[in-house]
Amino acid sequence: MRDVSIVGVGMTPFAHRPESFMDIAADGVIDALYDKDLRNLEMKDVEASYFGTMGGGPQAGQKALARLRSRMEEKGIEPQEGLTGIPVSNYENQCTSGTCAFDAAYRDISAGIHDIILAFGAEKLGKGALSAGAGGGLTTQKFDRDTEPPAPGMFAGQAREHMKRFGTTREHLAMVAVKSKEYAATNPNAQYRQRLTIDDVLNAPMIADPLTMFMCCPTTTGGSAAILCAKEIAKKFSDSPVDILTGVMKTARPTADMLAFESGWDPNIRAGYEAYKQTGLSPKDIDVAQVHDCFAIAELMHYESFGWCEMGRSGEWIESGAPCKGGDLPVNTDGGLISKGHPLGATGFAQVYELVHQLRGDAHNQIPDADIAWKHNMGGGVGVGMTYCVHVFKRGW
Amino acid sequence: MRDVSIVGVGMTPFAHRPESFMDIAADGVIDALYDKDLRNLEMKDVEASYFGTMGGGPQAGQKALARLRSRMEEKGIEPQEGLTGIPVSNYENQCTSGTCAFDAAYRDISAGIHDIILAFGAEKLGKGALSAGAGGGLTTQKFDRDTEPPAPGMFAGQAREHMKRFGTTREHLAMVAVKSKEYAATNPNAQYRQRLTIDDVLNAPMIADPLTMFMCCPTTTGGSAAILCAKEIAKKFSDSPVDILTGVMKTARPTADMLAFESGWDPNIRAGYEAYKQTGLSPKDIDVAQVHDCFAIAELMHYESFGWCEMGRSGEWIESGAPCKGGDLPVNTDGGLISKGHPLGATGFAQVYELVHQLRGDAHNQIPDADIAWKHNMGGGVGVGMTYCVHVFKRGW
Repeated sequence: MRDVSIVGVGMTPFAHRPESFMDIAADGVIDALYDKDLRNLEMKDVEASYFGTMGGGPQAGQKALARLRSRMEEKGIEPQEGLTGIPVSNYENQCTSGTCAFDAAYRDISAGIHDIILAFGAEKLGKGALSAGAGGGLTTQKFDRDTEPPAPGMFAGQAREHMKRFGTTREHLAMVAVKSKEYAATNPNAQYRQRLTIDDVLNAPMIADPLTMFMCCPTTTGGSAAILCAKEIAKKFSDSPVDILTGVMKTARPTADMLAFESGWDPNIRAGYEAYKQTGLSPKDIDVAQVHDCFAIAELMHYESFGWCEMGRSGEWIESGAPCKGGDLPVNTDGGLISKGHPLGATGFAQVYELVHQLRGDAHNQIPDADIAWKHNMGGGVGVGMTYCVHVFKRGW
Repeated sequence: MRDVSIVGVGMTPFAHRPESFMDIAADGVIDALYDKDLRNLEMKDVEASYFGTMGGGPQAGQKALARLRSRMEEKGIEPQEGLTGIPVSNYENQCTSGTCAFDAAYRDISAGIHDIILAFGAEKLGKGALSAGAGGGLTTQKFDRDTEPPAPGMFAGQAREHMKRFGTTREHLAMVAVKSKEYAATNPNAQYRQRLTIDDVLNAPMIADPLTMFMCCPTTTGGSAAILCAKEIAKKFSDSPVDILTGVMKTARPTADMLAFESGWDPNIRAGYEAYKQTGLSPKDIDVAQVHDCFAIAELMHYESFGWCEMGRSGEWIESGAPCKGGDLPVNTDGGLISKGHPLGATGFAQVYELVHQLRGDAHNQIPDADIAWKHNMGGGVGVGMTYCVHVFKRGW
């Protein structure tokens, strides 16, 4: 097994955007190709491309690459040779669609099958809440004020249980949103960048009690990408490569346990344990993290899953400022899903984007001397296996 | 890199079927789990699952596995533990969706990431021709008698060019269909099993001149699956494992060249050349083959791409009987896409199913002493990168 490095990352700003799905996907790739730390890469050297999307439809990745040339021309960039003709595989795994494409690229380079892979993801979402129905496609729905929308409702149940068992408060939940907005405020790629107080968050419209609007991730459109290569050739392309130490995927069991309170931890704990075991690292070694904060309660429970605080003590942990600016383990330093946005296929790559910049030392909310970064992404619908993915990165130079 | 074996295969009969998409997908898996040559495998030992579909929608693989338990109960099979909770990734690549899931399983076991993977695919298609429009989803359309339907029309153009350049005749094209029907006649899993004469084929309704109805693959519903493991543990599960010698994926370039006559060969030639190079085999070593005969002309051109006959001489080659029953290199011995059917996500696995049975020695149209098998699958829409996949199998005991 070979070591693998990330040498280029890119993303579009996340927002409700007018561009077509293919343009958005192409724009994320173009941003990665013109990553200021990337050099000497020609598209003709890219051996394969893996694309993540939930709702992009058949051959979405191929179509996006086919759009590269004209999209570059529209932007006044001289198109280079080899923009198309690359083998493309499309990966779908709901909210982890992008991460699964990224992970496949990591595995294949690790295995020696390819040396250089372009992995990317995109999503174009409408407004409203994503349906969490097991049979659902990429449907969005308007909030019905008489019932809880499915995805927020599921996490709201976990929040109520957490509050009951551990004394976690609404203020603790609001702190996740306040922290998220504080980080997003200085990230031009984030969808929502206004700073908020705890009162602002608590007084916002209630989506699913106790989760107010600002404790729920918005629907978003965006594209993002990463260029991975064998570590042995990474220096050819970048002076600031980032190494992937491990990638772990676990699934909830049994099928319906996404609904169970315990399942908010169980597969995360297994994924995190495996990542610690494989890297020989412990929680105190993590300098900066991205976790899947689709809803504020999820982020609190992830703190506990990964051993950053004791079980049930995540409320106190955020109250201590540990995951906040200047804290011991800054979490979701780009604003996370709650503020930066959550365009499913692009989400995992946007996490990679943020962590690569943190390890390079030029992130919008830079953590001093960041050396080890933790990436966590989860996804799935009710009644089917939820997927939980952890990757660990290290500054590679 | 470790050697990888196939120890279990399964498929539903292919047809227009009333079962739901999830039931069809689950049925393919159940058939593989109860493969008569498979023993000692418990689902709890399966470490990951890769699913191929074009039109299955988000988390189709997870949903299909979640359906396993109740589907087994409906069939009077005692459900076993561990049927769910397996990490699932979903692969989409049009007609190669299943092959890409199969190939990912092969790569990951080869790389040592997993030891045992369940890979499967399914599709539920309506009647009519698949749209070949670049923007198309999984749309079907009625034949419009005033224009050529897109996919048949594209291949019809290649057929006309082949006839003009090389003197290939309508009869040569018809021979592909006659051979296909001859093989399908004894395959209970095939969608269409009536034997036909050359006249029957030539007198059938014209879809896109010179391709008559019997020279075009039908739309089909079906599910199929394969269980792969590291060769070092294969004997635990089977006395008749089949080894994967290589897997190669190439893509057409530039983007629009699917429309060009030459592109009917180019990426195939590159994929085939690479497969020969990696295995040290030559065309004369292949005992039995499955190639992507979506339309009769495609099969003829594949003969030439892979060096089984000279360029332009495929008409003479099939006339000689070489790919037919009793010939030197029997091709599409299960009836191929034209007669067995083409449910996109399941197609690649059905090819694996046939070739595994050929190498085990118990296929419906058994080739004597088959030792080396060739699998070829291609897919894609117009204007985006077509994907071409070649895998080579060997009797593993």
